[in-house]
Order: sequence, then C-alpha cells, then structure tokens
Amino acid sequence: MSGQTDTTACVLIIGNEILSGKTQDANLRFFGLELARLGIRLAEARVIRDEHATIIDHVNACRTRFSYVFTTGGIGPTHDDITAEAVARAFGVELILNEEAVARLRRSGGHLNEARLKMARMPAGAELIDNPISHAPGFRIANVFVLAGIPNIARAMFASVAGGLSAGARIHSASVDVFTREGDIAAPLERIADAWPGVEIGSYPFVRDGVFGASLVVRGSDEALIGEVIDEIVTAMTALGGDPQRPLG
Amino acid sequence: MSGQTDTTACVLIIGNEILSGKTQDANLRFFGLELARLGIRLAEARVIRDEHATIIDHVNACRTRFSYVFTTGGIGPTHDDITAEAVARAFGVELILNEEAVARLRRSGGHLNEARLKMARMPAGAELIDNPISHAPGFRIANVFVLAGIPNIARAMFASVAGGLSAGARIHSASVDVFTREGDIAAPLERIADAWPGVEIGSYPFVRDGVFGASLVVRGSDEALIGEVIDEIVTAMTALGGDPQRPLG
Repeated sequence: MSGQTDTTACVLIIGNEILSGKTQDANLRFFGLELARLGIRLAEARVIRDEHATIIDHVNACRTRFSYVFTTGGIGPTHDDITAEAVARAFGVELILNEEAVARLRRSGGHLNEARLKMARMPAGAELIDNPISHAPGFRIANVFVLAGIPNIARAMFASVAGGLSAGARIHSASVDVFTREGDIAAPLERIADAWPGVEIGSYPFVRDGVFGASLVVRGSDEALIGEVIDEIVTAMTALGGDPQRPLG
Repeated sequence: MSGQTDTTACVLIIGNEILSGKTQDANLRFFGLELARLGIRLAEARVIRDEHATIIDHVNACRTRFSYVFTTGGIGPTHDDITAEAVARAFGVELILNEEAVARLRRSGGHLNEARLKMARMPAGAELIDNPISHAPGFRIANVFVLAGIPNIARAMFASVAGGLSAGARIHSASVDVFTREGDIAAPLERIADAWPGVEIGSYPFVRDGVFGASLVVRGSDEALIGEVIDEIVTAMTALGGDPQRPLG
C-alpha cells in the first residue's frame, strides 16, 4: 500500500454512547469521504470515552502523528461534556471564557445561564468554528478541530473549516464488482497490484443474495492511471469468468 | 464517570475501506451492545489501515490495556489481507499453516489454491474460531480475537466465542427523553449525577422535527438503582417543563 498524499487526518469520536451501542456513529464515513475529496487521507479514527485522561492521551498521541485531528462530541453544556477542558489540558493551556463565543451565544437567544456559558469556555488561543445550526461554536487549536457530535452540526462545522485545510493531491477511486470468491482472484489481483505501485488496490468481499463476490477498488491521485488499472482488472477477471461489473454512474 | 465493571474490550476495525468512506462500518454498534449484554464494557475502538506496522502497533498497545481485543477485517485470501501475519508479528511468534484450518477449508469445498491456503496461515499457538457461514475460521491468540470484517460473519464468529468470555457484572441502562435544550437541564442533571455515584448518567442531545432535546441515559450494574435515578430525573425534568418521556418497551 503506498500513500498518495502527505496530508493525513485522524478523527476522534468522543462519546460513551457510541461505544455502548446506544448510538450508531454517523460521522466517520462523512469525514472519510469529505477529506478524500479535499486530498486529505483519513488515516485513522478512534472512538473513546468521555474521560479526561483518555481524551488528553488520545489528543496528544494523534496531534503529533497526523496533519489534522478532528474531534466530535462532548462540547455541549452538560456535566458529561468535557472535551474543551480536556483539549486545553492536552495543550497545557488554560480554559478561558471566549468573549466572542459568549457574544454569539447571547445573539442566538435563550437564557445565557451557567450551563450555556460553559459552551463558551475554550482553550486560550483557540479560534472559533462557526455553527450555523445551533450557534454554540466549535473551535480550533493548532491542528486540532473540535466539532459537535450531532451529525448535521458536525457537518456544518466541517464545511466552515474545509476551505482552510491544506490539501495534498486529490484522491480518486474507481471500482469494479466481481462475482467470484476472493480466493479465485487473489493471485491475479496480487500480480496487478505489484505491477502498479502508483495506485492502491483493495479487495472487499461481500455476500449478495447468497452469492459471494468482491468489490475491487483502485485509489490514487492519477485518474488516468486508475482507469488503466481498472481496465487491466476487468480483462483479468473476465478471463477468470468473474463477470466484472462496473458500478453505474 | 465511574466504571461498572473491570472487564473491558477494545475493537480494532482493520480496513482502508472504512476510513475512505467507501463502506459504512456495521460492526462497532453490534460489539458495543453484545459486550454490554455480557457485562463487558467496550472501552475503545480504533479504525486503522491495512498496514503491517500500524496493525502491529495497535494490537500491542491495546492487548495490554484491555481485557479483550477483537479485530475485524483483513483475514481473507487477497494481497491486502495481512491481519494474521501482523498479529503473529505483534506477538513475536511464527505464522504457520494451521492444519485444522486447512482441513476445514478442504471440507468446505472449492479448489484449495495458494490464495485460499493463505486463510489457514495463523500465528503459532492460535486457537480457531468457528465460521459457520463461509468456513474460513478466525482465531484467538491470548486475549486477541481475530474475526472477519463482513458483518454477518463477524457476528457469527463472535457468537461462537461469546460463551467463553469472562464477564463482569451485567450492565443495565434506562433512558428518558426530554424536550428542552441541554443548557436548561445541565445544572439539575449535574446535581443528580453527583448524588448518585453508583451509576453513569449521560446526556445525548438531538434535534427531532426541529425541536431540541436530549436523551438522558442512566447506566450501571444495579437495575433497581437505575430505576430510582430515572424517577428522580423525571421528577426534576417535569419541574422544569421538559416533558420527559420514557421510551416504550
């Protein structure tokens, strides 16, 4: 597997509700797709508990390893929302009341009680991230972007920072489905993968209506090259009787 | 947040297809729910790339921190299936041809070519995990369980090992939905959380038909205690006009 870009990202999904199974994560796939569109490779994701030490450890482990870290969850007003405080401690800076965040919360209406004010407490030096939906902003500190967990708010916040991310080469992909067991295509596929080091070839098995098959995906920054490799895969799979089918669209 | 059990688990989802956004993960929530039913707390999950060094690092980081590690993905016959080899290297043992796995693959029919035989290569000392669906077995080495990535196969493999896991106290939960912004309930909720250290109380905001609300979840090993805390939450939220509603069933 060769990397196609030097710009990497890690997503930290902060929330016991995802780990307990109460809630189905709906953010990871969005980040993977959107970052790829920007030429940024989502290299890792971690789902972690709402605990100070845990958040601090993972933020510090990831911010030094990846170009960008996006966190989701834990920035609301309740007692279990501890992400902002933990991120401040990860960076060794104070948690302060951000006056611009206070002003935005005030403009959004509703009584600005102690709990709501908590949403304006952010690490010193943080820059706000717009929240067009429920107004309580997220924030960025260095290469760490702290977003809400609710999917539509997380997406809106991401959209407001996407333009400022430094991207690598945009990553393209194409795929073809074959209706044969992976074990029958592994050898020719490996030969093709070895012959084309400029792309990454993945084989993702499926069972569809009781029929075994695999989705063969070619990814890379050179769209023309991807097309050539797909053609070669189709030729090889047709020879094997794998009935290769390119997805429509 | 207090832990309710000393038995913890970590899930390592191995697969570029999840990170690229090609595939929506469908295993994490299953593990969270099933492990909780067994009294095992899913404490963390990581989604990582199909790369030797990456898999080795995460397997070694997680197997010392958690009671159990479950991996999914990367045990098929193609060139990008490298989990078994990486796990062997993580444990510092040889990757050997497991004769019982060979026998099972042979019985399952289909030509046992070099690629299929790869699925019988496992770390020395590994115990097989049954795969009633496509027959190629998973394996266990020490506290690491290596399962397939395809959801129905992952589930069947998990079912075949679940009975042998040592559980802590079973974790129960109950929830109530309130239709008010989290900022209005944060203070009373924190008081309740402080008063009942024997349970964990989480607040998970939602927007439903344009109305802001939060799902308040109480979790713990003492079912009667959970009921008492839910009653207290309902009383407090009713006083606030939050229209608390217990989910049906």
